Amino acid sequence: MNSFNQLIEELKKLKFGLFAKDFLLTWEKTEDELKQTLLVAEALKYLRDHNISAKVFDSGLAISNFRDNSTRTRFSFASACNLLGLEVQDLDETKSQIAHGETVRETANMISFLTDVIGIRDDMFLGEGHTYMKEVGDALDDGFKHGVLPQRPGIVNLQCDIDHPTQSMADLMHLVNYYGGLENLKGKKIAMTWAYSPSYGKPLSVPQGIIGLMTRFGMEVDLAYPEGYTLIPEVVEMAGKQAAASGGKFRVVNSMNEAFKNADIVYPKSWAPFAVMQRRTDLLKKSDKDGLKSLEQECLANNARFKDWECTEEKMKLTKGGNALYMHCLPADISDVSCVAGEVAATVFERYRIETYKEAGYKPYIIAAMIFNNKFQNPAAMLEHLFRSGINRVAL
Amino acid sequence: MNSFNQLIEELKKLKFGLFAKDFLLTWEKTEDELKQTLLVAEALKYLRDHNISAKVFDSGLAISNFRDNSTRTRFSFASACNLLGLEVQDLDETKSQIAHGETVRETANMISFLTDVIGIRDDMFLGEGHTYMKEVGDALDDGFKHGVLPQRPGIVNLQCDIDHPTQSMADLMHLVNYYGGLENLKGKKIAMTWAYSPSYGKPLSVPQGIIGLMTRFGMEVDLAYPEGYTLIPEVVEMAGKQAAASGGKFRVVNSMNEAFKNADIVYPKSWAPFAVMQRRTDLLKKSDKDGLKSLEQECLANNARFKDWECTEEKMKLTKGGNALYMHCLPADISDVSCVAGEVAATVFERYRIETYKEAGYKPYIIAAMIFNNKFQNPAAMLEHLFRSGINRVAL
Amino acid sequence: MNSFNQLIEELKKLKFGLFAKDFLLTWEKTEDELKQTLLVAEALKYLRDHNISAKVFDSGLAISNFRDNSTRTRFSFASACNLLGLEVQDLDETKSQIAHGETVRETANMISFLTDVIGIRDDMFLGEGHTYMKEVGDALDDGFKHGVLPQRPGIVNLQCDIDHPTQSMADLMHLVNYYGGLENLKGKKIAMTWAYSPSYGKPLSVPQGIIGLMTRFGMEVDLAYPEGYTLIPEVVEMAGKQAAASGGKFRVVNSMNEAFKNADIVYPKSWAPFAVMQRRTDLLKKSDKDGLKSLEQECLANNARFKDWECTEEKMKLTKGGNALYMHCLPADISDVSCVAGEVAATVFERYRIETYKEAGYKPYIIAAMIFNNKFQNPAAMLEHLFRSGINRVAL
Repeated sequence: MNSFNQLIEELKKLKFGLFAKDFLLTWEKTEDELKQTLLVAEALKYLRDHNISAKVFDSGLAISNFRDNSTRTRFSFASACNLLGLEVQDLDETKSQIAHGETVRETANMISFLTDVIGIRDDMFLGEGHTYMKEVGDALDDGFKHGVLPQRPGIVNLQCDIDHPTQSMADLMHLVNYYGGLENLKGKKIAMTWAYSPSYGKPLSVPQGIIGLMTRFGMEVDLAYPEGYTLIPEVVEMAGKQAAASGGKFRVVNSMNEAFKNADIVYPKSWAPFAVMQRRTDLLKKSDKDGLKSLEQECLANNARFKDWECTEEKMKLTKGGNALYMHCLPADISDVSCVAGEVAATVFERYRIETYKEAGYKPYIIAAMIFNNKFQNPAAMLEHLFRSGINRVAL
Repeated sequence: MNSFNQLIEELKKLKFGLFAKDFLLTWEKTEDELKQTLLVAEALKYLRDHNISAKVFDSGLAISNFRDNSTRTRFSFASACNLLGLEVQDLDETKSQIAHGETVRETANMISFLTDVIGIRDDMFLGEGHTYMKEVGDALDDGFKHGVLPQRPGIVNLQCDIDHPTQSMADLMHLVNYYGGLENLKGKKIAMTWAYSPSYGKPLSVPQGIIGLMTRFGMEVDLAYPEGYTLIPEVVEMAGKQAAASGGKFRVVNSMNEAFKNADIVYPKSWAPFAVMQRRTDLLKKSDKDGLKSLEQECLANNARFKDWECTEEKMKLTKGGNALYMHCLPADISDVSCVAGEVAATVFERYRIETYKEAGYKPYIIAAMIFNNKFQNPAAMLEHLFRSGINRVAL
Repeated sequence: MNSFNQLIEELKKLKFGLFAKDFLLTWEKTEDELKQTLLVAEALKYLRDHNISAKVFDSGLAISNFRDNSTRTRFSFASACNLLGLEVQDLDETKSQIAHGETVRETANMISFLTDVIGIRDDMFLGEGHTYMKEVGDALDDGFKHGVLPQRPGIVNLQCDIDHPTQSMADLMHLVNYYGGLENLKGKKIAMTWAYSPSYGKPLSVPQGIIGLMTRFGMEVDLAYPEGYTLIPEVVEMAGKQAAASGGKFRVVNSMNEAFKNADIVYPKSWAPFAVMQRRTDLLKKSDKDGLKSLEQECLANNARFKDWECTEEKMKLTKGGNALYMHCLPADISDVSCVAGEVAATVFERYRIETYKEAGYKPYIIAAMIFNNKFQNPAAMLEHLFRSGINRVAL
């Protein structure tokens, strides 16, 4: 059982810093903490793959609060919690009394008496998702401090307006496995680029999450979009600083071809321009349906000017050796499959389809690692304990 | 571990009577049975607080049937079941075939083949919730008797038209902890009083539950409301008899000030008048939307005449020492916070906010105790077994 | 513990063939495989009835995908999974991103990373449900083959357009228990007959499932319906061949009386004619509301011509000894109870009510057996292991 021991040895070298801390933004975490997340995720995956139980909780609730639709993150969260022994209870705000004007502070406590973790997706409104998560966190701190809660549930950001850390960390784990180690990412070029989609209003958190994370490890990160399709300026600025600090590069270009040129990895994915998301946020708050409709029309018309921002075979030829790794958070808008014209050509997607599935497959373990690290001061010791106990997940 | 042993010793003095009995109304239970519920709840809380597993079920379903919205009771029920090892399955009547004209008798059996407990909230229609729960109970008796069900699932009333026992028992547990013992409640004055709210149609089960329970322990219970805001007459009458029997007092007054005067505890909470609830029930049954709207208008206008029924700093000064314990089942209508004018002034609520959260925090343990007592003939022995086994809830 | 050992001994005589195979249609299974399902279901029921844990999974997800309403199958699936240690996560397609044009192939993988079983109900559209299940299965094969999934989740058909195997197998288990053995069904006459209902559009899968299964064991199967109320022709043809092969009989008659004559068992149940289901499928696909309404009118008018197709006391007298066993998948349309005139007279239903509840009560064990056999190559050995371990389901 060499490889498990290796993971644990690597883990022991780190300065653990995630205990009792919420996981909201990757850039709030140290490099060691990000490595800790990756290694614990690998170790948990190892246990599952070898039919060894990772059930560290005998009982306990995990609450999911999805303020927007979700399939893969919902199932990833459920899988992660179940793996560790927590039972998911969904906070469906339409079935609750929250409409009665209850404060976030109160609800956060009311659902948390026997709760170990809360996963939140809140990505609809610019300026709100991250703020909401911090508000929940403050309320939990308050409840825990005053003896209302016997434990402080950890919060996992399942996508906010700023970052999507369970996605970007799963993407990173995919790259680590693909290239055989985090150190091998140094100098690799990744093109995070806008791509055409026949829909509008897609959140900014994926591209922001990618540039906010991949600039930490000495990679060469190109962010590409048609003029106007900017992200939150502060995140872009931060990405530049991080790249400089990690010995990597970061630049913004307005050409997909330029970004693809010599890229090791391409991540073509649609999003709505920052300015549009701000207008949309205002309209959503006012429930201005007509305004939203006309904004949608305007945006779709604008998008349509950039139908050539598609990840075609042609463009793939520009990448390193013509065979850059294609990535996507899924579901992708695949031309001739899920739409007439979209983010990626069908042949390109099909060639990398299995890789994108594997990419997605790391998310349950990343989430489980985030919970695990939040709950155990010494994750290495706990993982060794699980390994030695060797309880079967499925009876043999 | 002195305190746990003390709880068990106290418990052993009681005549256990809750085994295989549904928990529908507190006034159907003996004083010993109410004490049994409180002590088992305390013991389960002790185990959880000391990281000792209370998982008495290896598998088994717990069904929740919420015929009205709920947050805290939903999560309390889920927490309680999970603590004991049961998995919650929600009976969502909109997703079932119940609309096909299926009888209660049949549905009750169909969902119960491997079910250990059913929690029901049915508080919308006067004259119906409690009746429905008894009908479900009869159906389960019938199924169990005829060998359809291998076990008779216990029913926990999660709020009906008459009583709200998980709320009132959690409230009582809060008072027991606040005053250091059930015997210390003797002679304490509690003011269960109507309060103004900008909404209408709030159920009667909370005030009824409070006067129906607190009159059992020698307390001085004042029920206060503006003329016309009566409760179900039979419950009020019963409260009077219970107070007399327990050496306490019970009176109805039409002045909030009068009730607050010298009170140890105040419970200001809005409800709709009994007569209005009856009319509302008729209109709901007929789906008479216009009738409901005009009833709402009429009631809100009537409520508005009593905006001075607010728990203000001024009124709090009338209470014993000016610092009576403020209670609420939450969410409260807080003036200037959740509404312009409501049940309680913001400063009063804020001073007691943490106490109200603690009050709510007892509910999961009360529900768990109700299930536990339903399932184990000798709860003291089973609790001692759990304590001695000492299995960690979270791995250490 | 004689009877458990007998079950295991009987089981050991069979050629196990269900490991890693989806359970979609009973007629794809060998006689030994059907017996294996019945015996494992009996053994699991034995364990549950004797308070012995059958928890073979320490963790793991079970996904339910109900594309149509369900109560008893939903709870049966939840009970079965919980019994074995799996946690149900419902795939609610309205809350997912599936509307975004995601392919079945992709979704099937995205939800399955840590999933052991998927239960699907898809019975609305003729020609679709079974096809959909096979498509999901192919996607899972693909994902497993390529290392996307660490395990291949088994699929259990919870009702499709063609078959309803968890229902028909539970019905068979009821007959085996009622008559004291599978071999005792030989020569018994069962009347699977259409019955009048004031609703329309009821699926064909129950009658098809019954004639597709009961013709396997040497029974005399009469399928009766008013002219025009045909089933899928291929299934009817297959039933005839199976009856011949098993030494039984199969015939189609257009008279309820004829079918009831001398029957040991009657199964009167409404369904929509095959041709109507095809038209309905077309209209549903086009979302043609007016078309659907007029089809409904037409069908209800047609149904009304056959109100005498009711299981009355009169008709029951035609059966063997006047006391054939009445069966139904529930809920039944009971005259004067759930409707003015329906499938069965109230007195007949009431006399057999408890039997129909017992019939339904086998479904959780049938589903659990389907999962168990999918996961364990040697179910006899695993059952013996559980029996010897003798872990209490509820603490004693």
